Amino acid sequence: MRNLKVTFLPEGKEVEVKEGTTLFEAAEKAGVYVNSVCGGEGTCGECRLQVMQGKAKSDKHSIGFFTTEEIKNGYVLACQTRVEDDLVVVVPARSRVEMEKIITEGIPAYSEPAKESARTSRREPGYPFDPIVKKVYLELPPPTLADNVANIDRVTRELSKRLSFSRCDVSLRCLQDIADKMREHNWKVTVTVANFEGACRILRVEGADTTDHDYGLAVDVGTTTVVVQLVNLKNGKIIGVEANHNMQAHYGDDVISRMVFACGRGSPQILQKAIVTNINVLTAALVKDSKIDPNDITCLVASGNTTMSHFLYGLTPCSLRLEPYVPTATVYPQVTAKEIGLNINPEAIIEMLPSVASYIGGDTVAGVLACGMADRAEISCLIDCGTNAEIAIGNNEWLVTCSASAGPAFEGSGTKWGMRATLGAIEKVQIDGGQVIYQTISKGKPRGICGSGLIDCIYELARNRVIGRDGKFDLSRNDPRLIFENDVAEYILAFPQETETGQAVTITETDIGNLIKSKGAVFAAVKSLVDYVGLSFAQLGNVYLAGGFGSSIDVPKAIAIGLLPDVEIGRVRYIGNSSLTGARMVLLSGHAFEASRTVARRMTNIELSNYVPFMNEFIASLFLPHTDDKLFPSVHY
Amino acid sequence: MRNLKVTFLPEGKEVEVKEGTTLFEAAEKAGVYVNSVCGGEGTCGECRLQVMQGKAKSDKHSIGFFTTEEIKNGYVLACQTRVEDDLVVVVPARSRVEMEKIITEGIPAYSEPAKESARTSRREPGYPFDPIVKKVYLELPPPTLADNVANIDRVTRELSKRLSFSRCDVSLRCLQDIADKMREHNWKVTVTVANFEGACRILRVEGADTTDHDYGLAVDVGTTTVVVQLVNLKNGKIIGVEANHNMQAHYGDDVISRMVFACGRGSPQILQKAIVTNINVLTAALVKDSKIDPNDITCLVASGNTTMSHFLYGLTPCSLRLEPYVPTATVYPQVTAKEIGLNINPEAIIEMLPSVASYIGGDTVAGVLACGMADRAEISCLIDCGTNAEIAIGNNEWLVTCSASAGPAFEGSGTKWGMRATLGAIEKVQIDGGQVIYQTISKGKPRGICGSGLIDCIYELARNRVIGRDGKFDLSRNDPRLIFENDVAEYILAFPQETETGQAVTITETDIGNLIKSKGAVFAAVKSLVDYVGLSFAQLGNVYLAGGFGSSIDVPKAIAIGLLPDVEIGRVRYIGNSSLTGARMVLLSGHAFEASRTVARRMTNIELSNYVPFMNEFIASLFLPHTDDKLFPSVHY
Repeated sequence: MRNLKVTFLPEGKEVEVKEGTTLFEAAEKAGVYVNSVCGGEGTCGECRLQVMQGKAKSDKHSIGFFTTEEIKNGYVLACQTRVEDDLVVVVPARSRVEMEKIITEGIPAYSEPAKESARTSRREPGYPFDPIVKKVYLELPPPTLADNVANIDRVTRELSKRLSFSRCDVSLRCLQDIADKMREHNWKVTVTVANFEGACRILRVEGADTTDHDYGLAVDVGTTTVVVQLVNLKNGKIIGVEANHNMQAHYGDDVISRMVFACGRGSPQILQKAIVTNINVLTAALVKDSKIDPNDITCLVASGNTTMSHFLYGLTPCSLRLEPYVPTATVYPQVTAKEIGLNINPEAIIEMLPSVASYIGGDTVAGVLACGMADRAEISCLIDCGTNAEIAIGNNEWLVTCSASAGPAFEGSGTKWGMRATLGAIEKVQIDGGQVIYQTISKGKPRGICGSGLIDCIYELARNRVIGRDGKFDLSRNDPRLIFENDVAEYILAFPQETETGQAVTITETDIGNLIKSKGAVFAAVKSLVDYVGLSFAQLGNVYLAGGFGSSIDVPKAIAIGLLPDVEIGRVRYIGNSSLTGARMVLLSGHAFEASRTVARRMTNIELSNYVPFMNEFIASLFLPHTDDKLFPSVHY
Repeated sequence: MRNLKVTFLPEGKEVEVKEGTTLFEAAEKAGVYVNSVCGGEGTCGECRLQVMQGKAKSDKHSIGFFTTEEIKNGYVLACQTRVEDDLVVVVPARSRVEMEKIITEGIPAYSEPAKESARTSRREPGYPFDPIVKKVYLELPPPTLADNVANIDRVTRELSKRLSFSRCDVSLRCLQDIADKMREHNWKVTVTVANFEGACRILRVEGADTTDHDYGLAVDVGTTTVVVQLVNLKNGKIIGVEANHNMQAHYGDDVISRMVFACGRGSPQILQKAIVTNINVLTAALVKDSKIDPNDITCLVASGNTTMSHFLYGLTPCSLRLEPYVPTATVYPQVTAKEIGLNINPEAIIEMLPSVASYIGGDTVAGVLACGMADRAEISCLIDCGTNAEIAIGNNEWLVTCSASAGPAFEGSGTKWGMRATLGAIEKVQIDGGQVIYQTISKGKPRGICGSGLIDCIYELARNRVIGRDGKFDLSRNDPRLIFENDVAEYILAFPQETETGQAVTITETDIGNLIKSKGAVFAAVKSLVDYVGLSFAQLGNVYLAGGFGSSIDVPKAIAIGLLPDVEIGRVRYIGNSSLTGARMVLLSGHAFEASRTVARRMTNIELSNYVPFMNEFIASLFLPHTDDKLFPSVHY
């Protein structure tokens, strides 16, 4: 078979592949990421490429995804097209996975370690500064005939004066080094120890005092984006943060399609490799920027949903998505960096925040830690909403959780012009007197509309009576923006001349229906949980919004469409990337680590899939804001 | 550089090596083992080979080791000779490391597990049958929506009904397999678990009931010989045993020369590789014979002296042999088979019996376990004598230990015609009326004399007044067997016409002097320890002899020369390879495992090197049987 060259524009990346390789595989090899929801099954039509030069062989049925015009212009689906010639292809704007604004900030995770008293006195939301892996410098007495205990015992004896543990293990590698290190450095050594839950494990022994070089990573393994934060374990300071798209997107846009891939054509190992690559790429950038030795990174704490947690460890997710929704594990074993291929110190320990159930993961546990709701008597509600919405309600005595599929609408998929919150996405909309005033991300020409823009849109359309409370267009209006395409009514937000692609950006009646279902599912989940514990919304002291979803959301509008419960605006607080915050809290405090396990154990998860009250609530929620106006006393259209 | 062929006779093994390779290295590559005490330094003169065909280049100073006749006949030192031609060489009998009778038997390690009551009632010397790694077959309830705990939790929940543990870990590899195994086998799985000290670790998950295939290895890592025993972990039965020479012999005959090699020209890793090869070779033979899958071997317990224990784990031994005699570790971490390269189940756990000090190792702890002395009120003495003698005295309340260098005489080195207890070694001697009646191993023609033969010899020479109580020959006798060679008197045990080599087998006055020093060191060590705890020999209820040394020893003669204390013969008991027995006891009982650590902790080691009473005792012991006759009331020459 011949080797053929494929050039991807606009980046100009070139790759050599064997004849017959799909363009999808070639793009992966070139490091060019193209959209995919189905993961290369040929069913989502997202991986559109335009062949400019050369001959490519497409599967015939894939032409159904294109207009005659598009076919004439060389449009193909990457996953259904085989390379049979040297090719030059363009990745169109819609198919490019571009960098969006990834949320890498959260509320402070711990009290500042400056003053000794502050470390122990402040508890909310921080925990005492006490990293789960740390360096300890020891000046040991040299051995004598009267004191000739084993080298390792000399170290642990001194260590026991500094740290509290009932047993202390040592890695074989470390034990092989220890004698030489001690002698070469005149009995002055720095040991890196994992110390929590009453145990101690020596990971590394170095000569002399190296405590100034002591680093850890906090990682948010999101389905869409991955964030790695480099933290100084000596003082808790954040040194840097890097983010990128989850490379698993190549195998599917959401957790379900990736699970289907992992349990079908692919394997959990392929997805593990992708996410490990993500973390390694980000770590390499952080290490380079801050000029540190990756061997000085000796701990990584990751937080993610249950599926992502399974993939990071290469665990099969196959029973996660099917009733009765069984995870392989919810408390993940401690592993070393070398075991999963991370390019930091090979003996570095990896901890993952515990999951609760198939659809309540470590990211929710992290969120509860980050907002401190499990430490207070006051009752709070945490809403982390992406394709899936995770809800936690409770206080320092009890915690209940549930999750509901919100659909991809809020994340920018599943609507005609939906897109992620990247360059050119309409993120804010106001409609007044038939005029649409929109704001796009980075002030780019409109390319589509993201989650917060869609929420605004629904509200503004309803407020202007363009749609009714049932989400249907009022076709009696003579609105030039209201058009029909393929018999479906749609509303023009940006005319062709305003947009990047030259095509109008619209919202269709189908889109509106999908969004109402999405907001209905989230609200019904919150309502079901509140009812389950016999509360009313008025009793929720705080409503925390977590994740990218909440960052640009207009809270009054989200309440007005019935997405969020009708509570005082002041009680709604955006807590940023609380998954990352929680991971960092655990990295920096053994107490937070213990708390994460306690929180996970305390959570009672309500499985909504067969829960009749939820089904009723969902149906009642398919209205703007709700069929029961009394639930939204402050909302008036 | 040319490739050259070297053929080793009498085995006829051929090997191809690069020009310039030493014959010593060529022999190693060919798997032909030649004697070496210095480990290839060119100083011991043990690695003698005879070049029959071809040209070899010898270092000039090595000719000092040979007679003119020998040089003419092509004798060279393997380590000082480089291959410059295709060669045919003969490994002479004296230089061959041949298989001796390796002691692979000990007293029973545990009570027969046949009856349930017997498992718990019998304590001495056995422990309840409860292997530290075992297979457990579980029939799990299938998950439902009401019971959808994680797969691993479903397993540990059921496991906790069978075993006792406060926490249960699982290896990553195992967790990656578990979901598929459970589903494929209809929720019927067999888990292999390490379960001791309140912890539990799942090493392996298999579908269906595989408890009939559950094996472990007990290993005695001796300086000279290595013994591996294959044990059925379901019922405790010994399936087979294999033994070979420690391949580390290539780098030196004793622990000191191997340590010198490891800390100088070589490395601990080279010695680790050698001993791991030993165990792999023996395991391969056992597995083949018994037709079992090596993956079904999931635990290995090893016992050895502190140096051997360090080498098996690749730990540096460099501070072991130098004052103040500091080991790298005395309690060895649990490792997995894959970490040290053993060809059994990669996740199999390896445990090594704990050491006490540089010269009191896991083999002594094993000996104490095997004879049960630490469980009884009666005071016992354990003597394990090779090049080094280890002594333990104590009971269920206290234990003291010491070690003394006995020199290589009892192991067959360091005397003119000394050899190991292999084919043709004189092992028993009786002298009556100038006639020497000897018995050789396997009735071979005499090739030399081994430890037990030398003890007999000293006694018989003294009894016949051929030597005085000071070990000097009575030169006034007109004994045709008494001759002089190089001005040193020697006594002919076997005339040239009787021997394999055609040279007389003799014992020289120098040999006798060395043997008196050896027996003096052992006795002085026992005496020092007895004095240290304020006892007399009469208070020793039992004297246990361990190791190869004790197997063919004539106890009354050993007492008569002042090697063993003068106790009732009936109290002296040979306990065989107690290092192996102790390892097997730990393999088969978590209680024995705990006991091994308790015994090691309880042992108070007396460092004799600077202990003045020992020096005085040693000098007083350089006489037959002793300068103080009152210590040997039953001995009369």
